[in-house]
Amino acid sequence: MTTPRADHQPDPAKGAAVKAADRAHVFHSWSAQELIEPLAVAGAQGSYFWDYDGNTYLDFSSGLVNANIGYQHPKVVAAIQEQAGRMTTFAPAYAIDVRAEAARLVAERTPGDLDKIFFTNGGAEAVENAVRMARLHTGRPKVLSAYRSYHGATSGAINLTGDPRRWPSDTASAGVVHFWGPYPYRSPFHSDSPEQECERALSHLADLIAFEGPQSIAAIILETVVGTAGVLVPPEGYLAGVRALCDRYGIVFVLDEVMAGFGRTGRWFAADHWDVVPDLMTFAKGVNSGYVPLGGVAISAEIAATFATRPYPGGLTYSGHPLACASAVATINAMREERIVENAADLGERVIGPALREIADRHPSVGEVRGMGVFWALDLVRSKETREPLVPYNPSAADNAPMGAFAAACKKNGLWPFVNMNRTHVVPPCTITEAEAKEGLAILDEALTTADGFTV
Amino acid sequence: MTTPRADHQPDPAKGAAVKAADRAHVFHSWSAQELIEPLAVAGAQGSYFWDYDGNTYLDFSSGLVNANIGYQHPKVVAAIQEQAGRMTTFAPAYAIDVRAEAARLVAERTPGDLDKIFFTNGGAEAVENAVRMARLHTGRPKVLSAYRSYHGATSGAINLTGDPRRWPSDTASAGVVHFWGPYPYRSPFHSDSPEQECERALSHLADLIAFEGPQSIAAIILETVVGTAGVLVPPEGYLAGVRALCDRYGIVFVLDEVMAGFGRTGRWFAADHWDVVPDLMTFAKGVNSGYVPLGGVAISAEIAATFATRPYPGGLTYSGHPLACASAVATINAMREERIVENAADLGERVIGPALREIADRHPSVGEVRGMGVFWALDLVRSKETREPLVPYNPSAADNAPMGAFAAACKKNGLWPFVNMNRTHVVPPCTITEAEAKEGLAILDEALTTADGFTV
Ligand SMILES: Cc1ncc(COP(=O)(O)O)c(C=O)c1O
Ligand SMILES: Cc1ncc(COP(=O)(O)O)c(C=O)c1O
Repeated sequence: MTTPRADHQPDPAKGAAVKAADRAHVFHSWSAQELIEPLAVAGAQGSYFWDYDGNTYLDFSSGLVNANIGYQHPKVVAAIQEQAGRMTTFAPAYAIDVRAEAARLVAERTPGDLDKIFFTNGGAEAVENAVRMARLHTGRPKVLSAYRSYHGATSGAINLTGDPRRWPSDTASAGVVHFWGPYPYRSPFHSDSPEQECERALSHLADLIAFEGPQSIAAIILETVVGTAGVLVPPEGYLAGVRALCDRYGIVFVLDEVMAGFGRTGRWFAADHWDVVPDLMTFAKGVNSGYVPLGGVAISAEIAATFATRPYPGGLTYSGHPLACASAVATINAMREERIVENAADLGERVIGPALREIADRHPSVGEVRGMGVFWALDLVRSKETREPLVPYNPSAADNAPMGAFAAACKKNGLWPFVNMNRTHVVPPCTITEAEAKEGLAILDEALTTADGFTV
Repeated sequence: MTTPRADHQPDPAKGAAVKAADRAHVFHSWSAQELIEPLAVAGAQGSYFWDYDGNTYLDFSSGLVNANIGYQHPKVVAAIQEQAGRMTTFAPAYAIDVRAEAARLVAERTPGDLDKIFFTNGGAEAVENAVRMARLHTGRPKVLSAYRSYHGATSGAINLTGDPRRWPSDTASAGVVHFWGPYPYRSPFHSDSPEQECERALSHLADLIAFEGPQSIAAIILETVVGTAGVLVPPEGYLAGVRALCDRYGIVFVLDEVMAGFGRTGRWFAADHWDVVPDLMTFAKGVNSGYVPLGGVAISAEIAATFATRPYPGGLTYSGHPLACASAVATINAMREERIVENAADLGERVIGPALREIADRHPSVGEVRGMGVFWALDLVRSKETREPLVPYNPSAADNAPMGAFAAACKKNGLWPFVNMNRTHVVPPCTITEAEAKEGLAILDEALTTADGFTV
């Protein structure tokens, strides 16, 4: 797929101009500004995007794992256009038709009695508000979160985060205590089965609660399926065990479904796989595929009641933004009508999972395949025996060469991969077709030969 | 203006349905959920919005002081519709035409060499990132901010905030030290002129820096014109004095122009009134009037250079969101073409300022009038002599009765006022016409008679 699609012609001069304009004025996130060369992207449709030089890429990253419905879904585009003509923006304190309808559609899907929706602009603000609600609901200061996690980059959210992006912003005074979640393939508990991993992870968490003091813990926050840190699917029983610990000690259980929610795992929410009901659930990304910035918190009846007659002390100018809410309404309706969540489940089970496992068998660099739906990771290793990661944790640019070579091999053949440390995640849109999935898997297969070259 | 406009018909049944749907599922910011009755709003155009019951309101609040270009500006609506059809969303790591163009248009207007733009979804995230940049640039932990201020509601931003909204979320460990800014009408320094207020405010700040330790201070953050906390226009020389203190000690000077920027004061940025150049400037709201959530930080060359070869450790999924950026491009271009900033300056100087001063002379409840452009406050008092505020700081619902009665009197006659503690702010869109301004000022004038009833 390095040939452009019929509806767009290369225009290298425009591409060069866009790149120059970008370099002149855009300050990019998570980057050393002079060491990057951002690709100029001209357009995107469905599972593909293309540059100005005639290259088209199949997007196995869904942007930042947000475009669950693919790019430029016609129903969502039309809904944005229509709402823009009706009412683009209005302040949060009012009742607005699309705001209420978006809340209803989200609440209809969230588990249990999580039926009140507080809208934000994105995932970090959702996490910030969930933590504030938990602290005020319990009157307790501490929050427990996992070392392998990402929760966003505002002060509160980055302190909860467990990956190296926390370090430069860590205040060590945010009231956060990190724990180890289950990860059978690289067990922090030296377990030898998922069952044992689950048991030991829960006993680790119970110990931590005991030693931190249950009375001081407002919340435990977890990604239902850990996303950026490795598509870590919790072993059977783990989430129920955390729920039980929370119940025992009156701790608020927050599930962060910013990445896992809205179809990614083949269910509306990942929590549905284990029938677990948190007290608060954060969402963003897939709720409207990021067509307009939107996130939020789904709130249990008990926590909502805390703020029935006592004001909830949080907000933002664009809470429940009409254009964002209209795009969420259209997204959720289209996902339902077109059975997009079911498509993710079906392709994951029937096509992607089996193909990845078969690929893993053939490639010495693939240590483990994990995932469900359109949410998969290949854990790449220098040796299947030692399980030594193909590149070290938080690699330097030099250390990262093997993953860089792998990514380049994907791109050369028209696949845009998601790469994080020693892993590549297979996270295409939930709308991906079987043919597209197979096209991407074939390119991935070939590119892994490059990774194999770095095994010992 | 309690009659509906020609293009929309009342529909009370729909209004009731929207209200019921809202109450069922929308969790509202800054509110006790069961003590509010959100008005169901059916539409908005220019300076007006209307409900489902046949009432139209002239909006003297511009939403949350964000709709600088008014509601449903046709050029911005068209740009959103066009961009939605082209590319609604794309990840931050790429060069995108409208992203680069929005950055260029913002950079073209920011003072000095603040020419690199980091985009966020709103104001709080802009402040969060400005503070992170300042801390990493200086290697110092503390940030000074003003007691009379609002900077947003994420952990970092709410700790900087100086109003009561901080209290429930205050961590007292965020590295923030608050100081008193100039406020001649209620001087914290017992000054008797703006000149003396300026001098004393600067000496207070210099003392605070000395006692906190200049080597420990990363940044001083200030709203150029303090917004929500009272439209406090800095006396001549104050901002230059803060700039000089920052220069002396290598402290990063951050101006928060989230509310003051993009035309509100009758200039593109409020800083332009005093020719002051900060090191970082935060913006949101007016940059695209909130048509799509957008904010950002404008970064000086020196601070950008800190992140030239060292990665900037911050980001968010929707940094530089294409739909948001396209709406900013259209907004800035429309504001330039239609001389909207000039309109705000002209109406402020020729119509609103004089009218408010004349109103103040006649009403015993109006203690002071402050402002510029379309950014004004009436400081309401129980007595002009004692200057005792009409309601106390952070009033209880019962204490707030006088302001409640005043607001109700405005609404009854079709004016939607902005009310905060003992103040009403006159903050209509920058696009307001002279006739509309006069219509609103007449209603305000009449409603102040109600406030007069509470004077002693
Ligand atoms: C699980 C999770 N939580 C929170 C966030 C933060 O979301 P945002 O980038 O919209 O602030 C992310 C973003 O990747 C995420 O994956
Ligand atoms: C000066 C200032 N800074 C920051 C903010 C926070 O912006 P947002 O609500 O978009 O997070 C506001 C909002 O009113 C503001 O007025």
